[in-house]
Amino acid sequence: MPEHVFFFGGGEAEGTAKARENLGGKGANLAEMTNLGIPVPPGFTISTPVCKYFTDHEGSYPDGLEAEVEATIKRLEGVMGAKFGDNENPLLVSVRSGAAVSMPGMMDTVLNLGLNDESVQGLIRKSGQERFAWDSYRRFVNMFGDVVMDVDHEHFETILTGLKNEVGATQDTELDTPHLQELVKRYKSLYKEKTGEEFPTNPIDQLWRAVGAVFKSWNIPRAIKYRQLNSITGLLGTAVNVQVMVFGNMGNTSGTGVAFTRNPSDGTQEFYGEYLMNAQGEDVVAGIRTPRPIKDLADGMPKVYDELIGIKNRLEKHYRDVQDVEFTIQEGKLYMLQTRSGKRTAQAAVKIAVDMVKEGLIDKNTALLRVDAGLLDTLLHPGFDPKAEKELLASGLPASPGAATGKIVFNADDAERLGNEGEAVLLVRNETSPEDIGGMHAARGILTATGGMTSHAAVVARGMGTCCVAGCGSLRIDYKKKTLIVGDRTFKEGDFLSLDGSAGEVYVGQVPTVPPALSEDFGELMGWADDARRLRVRANADTPEDARKARENGAEGIGLCRTEHMFFDADRIVAMREMILANNLKEREAALGKLLPMQVEDFAAIFEAMEGLPVTIRLLDPPLHEFLPHEDSSQQEMADSMGVSLQVVQDKVRSLHESNPMLGHRGCRLGVTYPEIYEMQAKAIIEAACRVQEKGIKIFPEIMIPLIGTSQEFNILATQIRNVAEAMLKEKGIKLDYLVGTMIEIPRAALTAAEIAENAEFFSFGTNDLTQLTYGYSRDDINRFLPDYLDQKILPEDPFQVMDQAGVGKLVSIAVKDGRSGRPNLKIGICGEHGGDPKSVTFCHHEGLDYVSCSPFRVPIARLAAAQAQIQS
Amino acid sequence: MPEHVFFFGGGEAEGTAKARENLGGKGANLAEMTNLGIPVPPGFTISTPVCKYFTDHEGSYPDGLEAEVEATIKRLEGVMGAKFGDNENPLLVSVRSGAAVSMPGMMDTVLNLGLNDESVQGLIRKSGQERFAWDSYRRFVNMFGDVVMDVDHEHFETILTGLKNEVGATQDTELDTPHLQELVKRYKSLYKEKTGEEFPTNPIDQLWRAVGAVFKSWNIPRAIKYRQLNSITGLLGTAVNVQVMVFGNMGNTSGTGVAFTRNPSDGTQEFYGEYLMNAQGEDVVAGIRTPRPIKDLADGMPKVYDELIGIKNRLEKHYRDVQDVEFTIQEGKLYMLQTRSGKRTAQAAVKIAVDMVKEGLIDKNTALLRVDAGLLDTLLHPGFDPKAEKELLASGLPASPGAATGKIVFNADDAERLGNEGEAVLLVRNETSPEDIGGMHAARGILTATGGMTSHAAVVARGMGTCCVAGCGSLRIDYKKKTLIVGDRTFKEGDFLSLDGSAGEVYVGQVPTVPPALSEDFGELMGWADDARRLRVRANADTPEDARKARENGAEGIGLCRTEHMFFDADRIVAMREMILANNLKEREAALGKLLPMQVEDFAAIFEAMEGLPVTIRLLDPPLHEFLPHEDSSQQEMADSMGVSLQVVQDKVRSLHESNPMLGHRGCRLGVTYPEIYEMQAKAIIEAACRVQEKGIKIFPEIMIPLIGTSQEFNILATQIRNVAEAMLKEKGIKLDYLVGTMIEIPRAALTAAEIAENAEFFSFGTNDLTQLTYGYSRDDINRFLPDYLDQKILPEDPFQVMDQAGVGKLVSIAVKDGRSGRPNLKIGICGEHGGDPKSVTFCHHEGLDYVSCSPFRVPIARLAAAQAQIQS
Repeated sequence: MPEHVFFFGGGEAEGTAKARENLGGKGANLAEMTNLGIPVPPGFTISTPVCKYFTDHEGSYPDGLEAEVEATIKRLEGVMGAKFGDNENPLLVSVRSGAAVSMPGMMDTVLNLGLNDESVQGLIRKSGQERFAWDSYRRFVNMFGDVVMDVDHEHFETILTGLKNEVGATQDTELDTPHLQELVKRYKSLYKEKTGEEFPTNPIDQLWRAVGAVFKSWNIPRAIKYRQLNSITGLLGTAVNVQVMVFGNMGNTSGTGVAFTRNPSDGTQEFYGEYLMNAQGEDVVAGIRTPRPIKDLADGMPKVYDELIGIKNRLEKHYRDVQDVEFTIQEGKLYMLQTRSGKRTAQAAVKIAVDMVKEGLIDKNTALLRVDAGLLDTLLHPGFDPKAEKELLASGLPASPGAATGKIVFNADDAERLGNEGEAVLLVRNETSPEDIGGMHAARGILTATGGMTSHAAVVARGMGTCCVAGCGSLRIDYKKKTLIVGDRTFKEGDFLSLDGSAGEVYVGQVPTVPPALSEDFGELMGWADDARRLRVRANADTPEDARKARENGAEGIGLCRTEHMFFDADRIVAMREMILANNLKEREAALGKLLPMQVEDFAAIFEAMEGLPVTIRLLDPPLHEFLPHEDSSQQEMADSMGVSLQVVQDKVRSLHESNPMLGHRGCRLGVTYPEIYEMQAKAIIEAACRVQEKGIKIFPEIMIPLIGTSQEFNILATQIRNVAEAMLKEKGIKLDYLVGTMIEIPRAALTAAEIAENAEFFSFGTNDLTQLTYGYSRDDINRFLPDYLDQKILPEDPFQVMDQAGVGKLVSIAVKDGRSGRPNLKIGICGEHGGDPKSVTFCHHEGLDYVSCSPFRVPIARLAAAQAQIQS
Repeated sequence: MPEHVFFFGGGEAEGTAKARENLGGKGANLAEMTNLGIPVPPGFTISTPVCKYFTDHEGSYPDGLEAEVEATIKRLEGVMGAKFGDNENPLLVSVRSGAAVSMPGMMDTVLNLGLNDESVQGLIRKSGQERFAWDSYRRFVNMFGDVVMDVDHEHFETILTGLKNEVGATQDTELDTPHLQELVKRYKSLYKEKTGEEFPTNPIDQLWRAVGAVFKSWNIPRAIKYRQLNSITGLLGTAVNVQVMVFGNMGNTSGTGVAFTRNPSDGTQEFYGEYLMNAQGEDVVAGIRTPRPIKDLADGMPKVYDELIGIKNRLEKHYRDVQDVEFTIQEGKLYMLQTRSGKRTAQAAVKIAVDMVKEGLIDKNTALLRVDAGLLDTLLHPGFDPKAEKELLASGLPASPGAATGKIVFNADDAERLGNEGEAVLLVRNETSPEDIGGMHAARGILTATGGMTSHAAVVARGMGTCCVAGCGSLRIDYKKKTLIVGDRTFKEGDFLSLDGSAGEVYVGQVPTVPPALSEDFGELMGWADDARRLRVRANADTPEDARKARENGAEGIGLCRTEHMFFDADRIVAMREMILANNLKEREAALGKLLPMQVEDFAAIFEAMEGLPVTIRLLDPPLHEFLPHEDSSQQEMADSMGVSLQVVQDKVRSLHESNPMLGHRGCRLGVTYPEIYEMQAKAIIEAACRVQEKGIKIFPEIMIPLIGTSQEFNILATQIRNVAEAMLKEKGIKLDYLVGTMIEIPRAALTAAEIAENAEFFSFGTNDLTQLTYGYSRDDINRFLPDYLDQKILPEDPFQVMDQAGVGKLVSIAVKDGRSGRPNLKIGICGEHGGDPKSVTFCHHEGLDYVSCSPFRVPIARLAAAQAQIQS
């Protein structure tokens, strides 16, 4: 086995698909295809550990690498019968990055390497195409200058445009050999002017510089940002793939294309892709010319098409997954340049996974692992209301499904700024580039004027699950004026448009949305997930409507029913405020007496909706001041309606003011100081439960005390609640299964879980508050420093979205272990935001929790993530 | 050895002082004294396990107890030549409780048990005193009815008063035999009326009922409450002491007294006590007659006095501690009824401990354990003249000890102005804020209406050693009118008040104070403490003055030097505010450039004051808004002085506003977003260190980063600081020993201590914030529920005063263990308020911390507590 440099070519390769970590995805798959006998231009891969060494040693290489590379070049020359810099049969190579995880567009590529004033003559001789050879040369100088030496591409463009003007050409294709020779000359002058040195003529020298540039590009900001956004960690670096050039631009029997073995948008079993004749790969990706659908190739080059179909079938069977392939046809001969697992929409992922099980390609567990639980979101997101009136503005390509409506902005920075301020924005660009990643992430939808289904915008948007319409040719965008003109209509920044990414359509104004209808495949896959998983999934729901929605989505109970939202209805807030303004116990009890029957109705309706399933009701949690108005006019209104003076209201607001309300008088602390509040709620829960049970409906209420920090708090309040419950049940002569348990959301509760579990029948981790306190972050204030913290990698992710396992998770572990040490059957769940995040669900599975609870909408995500955790454990 | 009943009498006893747990303190000491040959009325003790059995078995006794008790009574009758119920020589006994830990006043006592209509005749015959005998009888009926049968003492008093009125008597002593006989009759009727049965005439019956009452009294609410309040746990119950009656009220050669073997107020080696002739013990306690000083007994009964002195000397030598004794003289014969360790003031404790070492009675370690470290506080601060007349105005929290008197002022500026003019002023505020530092420094005492023991006022006052009463809720302060209203009294600016910060009390007018006089004994004891302890003691000090004070008090370094207070001086706050208002890095750096030389001066002065000792400097911690004024007029002033519009100032204040500033943009989060701030501070520290070191002064700076929650934060900031430092030192060519470490005050930092310690050279627990976050309590808001929480025993103590070992302590343990796992020599200290609390110091010792750091005034407390922890471990 070689140490750093892995050769492939001549029907065999030193690497395999399994060497992905060392060779990167591209290199490993090139080796694999070579071994499968698929036509791949020969070449070699410099492994990822070299990148790590390069990064750690200020750009130097491990001992012996140079000799190894040069020996491998000799081998390549041997296989090809060509020689670097030769003026008869010159060896020309591409140099490409390729990490273990695909990072589209993140790393730089150099093509046609090996050209110089002599070898260009060789290329002319070999190809017989002088214009093509000089065009390749000038492209190489441009690309090398830009990518390797940081000479801005704009300067090359200026020279090109200048020359075109001089000779009266409008298209590049109108330039002939002398023009291209002149371009090479001017490009080299530019190169010398900007870099202070001559353009390197020695191909080996060119190669080393290109290899170094690829390794360096691992740590350019946009690559770092991409890894951050996609939580890609633990990689050594990128590999470098050096591969003999094949040319899709050698005339009309040459071409290039990209294709998926199945439709990556909806999963249909069809060969799906596009190609351009007489073009190089970047012409397809850049979206300058609009490619043709792959099936047209059957007519143009039927033999090549048949060969491609054969390879497609072999690859899919071999990899047992959808492949995303790149190919080039050079003068009628097909070469495969890449194969990799194809990115797909959630909808496609579901269909493909289910289909492949039916085709016997994979088993159900593999199918479950094939769907990114996080992406299910896109299936679950609303689409346009079919009944809505819509005014079609333009059509483009359905680049990433889903629907979105928002204010249009014309650059990524504006999108990022407004998006982070909570505005719904659509990012509108001629085309996108890797620098736009941040803005694309912040946007609700992306609209581009050029580019195909595999353009940067399309690929990235699908990866993000963001709706995208690409290649919408009728748009005229003026970045300076910040306007978008379609026909005779002009839209300014801030105007509303709506996108249908599944249909590739753009509508005027705001189009209302509705929830999507989920496919049968989806239901089937979810059924498999339910069979596979151990972890139960509940929903956080405060109303009977939410409860029903949760059940529809497969929730197996309610893990968090917040009672405070019930107090904001117009008729209730008055009683609530009377309670707060009460001067003594008697007045407070009178106000609570008015709330009691309302609470009974609330709970009874939720219990009925959740027949047969557990419902965890959290007793009052927020500080009382949240129920009082804070603006003068509302305070006056409240005073008037309650027949007290404004002063009384304002005094109460003032007296309830706290420096740090998060850490203040709320949760069970209110329960301790005003026992009558929880007593009323306990009564309402038991009363509702009895009423519903009397109708023959089975229910399992779980009464949850929030913000417990000491076992004493829990003991006092649980005793009070149980006393109320037992007295009512005894009086009614009813037997009821109910539990009394606690939120674990205060670090101290986790640290003293053993004591608390002596008396608590269940724990539910409130990971929102637990995260706030473990980090000392206020969710309301974190945005002041969170962007800096993510940029500087102090935090890998927003800890309020993905549970921090090292800190918060450690508290969860302690609490689970200690809580169950004395009470082995302690029921444990989680009801914070993290309950619907796949990584956090995996963590909960491994910690032995009984259930997760999340928003109704994310229940399917949690079901799938739970199944995946089980399968992978 | 007997099983349950332990006899003492006739010069020997079955128990000893060591059997305290079984016999209770009183019983063990009665046995011990008997064995020493000291005259003790004979009797027996029923052991504490019987109480446990009694409690666990619904008031029944272990098998054989009855026989054992009755056999022991026979033995007692034999020794005394007397018989229960006899009408010639009746045996009369007292029945008293006595647990292993003294619980004064908690348990009930019955005297003269054994009297009935027949034995009263025996008592008359034996004593020859008919009136005395009937008086004893009526007292017995009263006491038995009250204590044993729960007949309210009031009813007996009503009968007594009624009879006195009938016969025209004003004093009990005016009642003669027939009156007392009538009283016995009426008492018995009352007894029958209230209990439904006749008064028991059989002495054995009386005895069992009394014994049962003592055992029952172990679990009456006030006994339970006392044990809770004093954290008394682990006891089986109380013992019962049955002892032959001796009478101090048998005439003019009888008497009773209590005495200490040394003066318990100041520790002087003198016999100290008082006695009453012709009286029973409860007459002394009740305070109806004024007792005489013990030395008068030398004149009245020289032989008895000499005997008492002899016994005193023997007891002190035997117990090697000050004894608190009770004695009774019956017709010229001395009996000792009790001996126990004497309670003493801190001053006395110090003197006695040191004296006893010199006398060879105890060793130094024992002496160190004899002084309650918590009480030392009272020695270190001025107090009111004990002879002064005082009028209490209001009560609050004892936030910072000491006493002060002065003219009240209502804002910090006035306090500073008048204070600097030499006026004694008290600063009276609703609450204080960092802007008030100057005024707080100038004031003699601080009084606030809101805020708890760890409010800004309390923390800062303790740090300054200034007396403070906080959270005095009955104050109504009008800043505009400059008045203070308490109830119906109004005080104007300039009126005198006096504060007792140790008691939390506010007095009207000027109460004269006396300065603390620290004795030589104190210094000697502290020296022994320093020899004994392992744990180092540092001080929290922000100024050279505080540093010097800390050194005087024995601090071995500064564990927390807060840099933010340095920014409030008039000339600095301007530059600080320029920094905050800066629109960009350049402006910010310009403002910081102005602060740099000032910080250099600050640090240099502190380093010089702490020559040879480590100084831990905490980088900027508070959120920036704390440096901006929040009142309109001050904002206008600031705008004027900085040449900006009011709007600019107000916009900045608004933009810095946070929902939960405790959890906001502060500490190292500022350091991350504005690296230039910490860079300036690091420069200032290194510059100052170099300057001082160049003078030949040895210093050990420790740079401490606050609010670290992730190892990444620490790594980024520590690298920045070390880079700044190394560059400066290299340029100057100076070698400097300095450390870079972190506060551990965020739960997550404790939970990820292993990672943080990879790069941190020291940890310092900031237990104030750590307590806030572990409990989810805001120091500023906790007073809304803390009183309820203490009342209901949810919290045993204010966790901001005494470290919570179960929760916060668990995090400390984790951090110490994990932090040292990879860096065994990690230096670890604590710099929160708890560093000066004896229990918390003990905890820190056991956790293996290197040092504690507390306010300069609490340093001696920490030194002693550290020594005690070492001695007891």
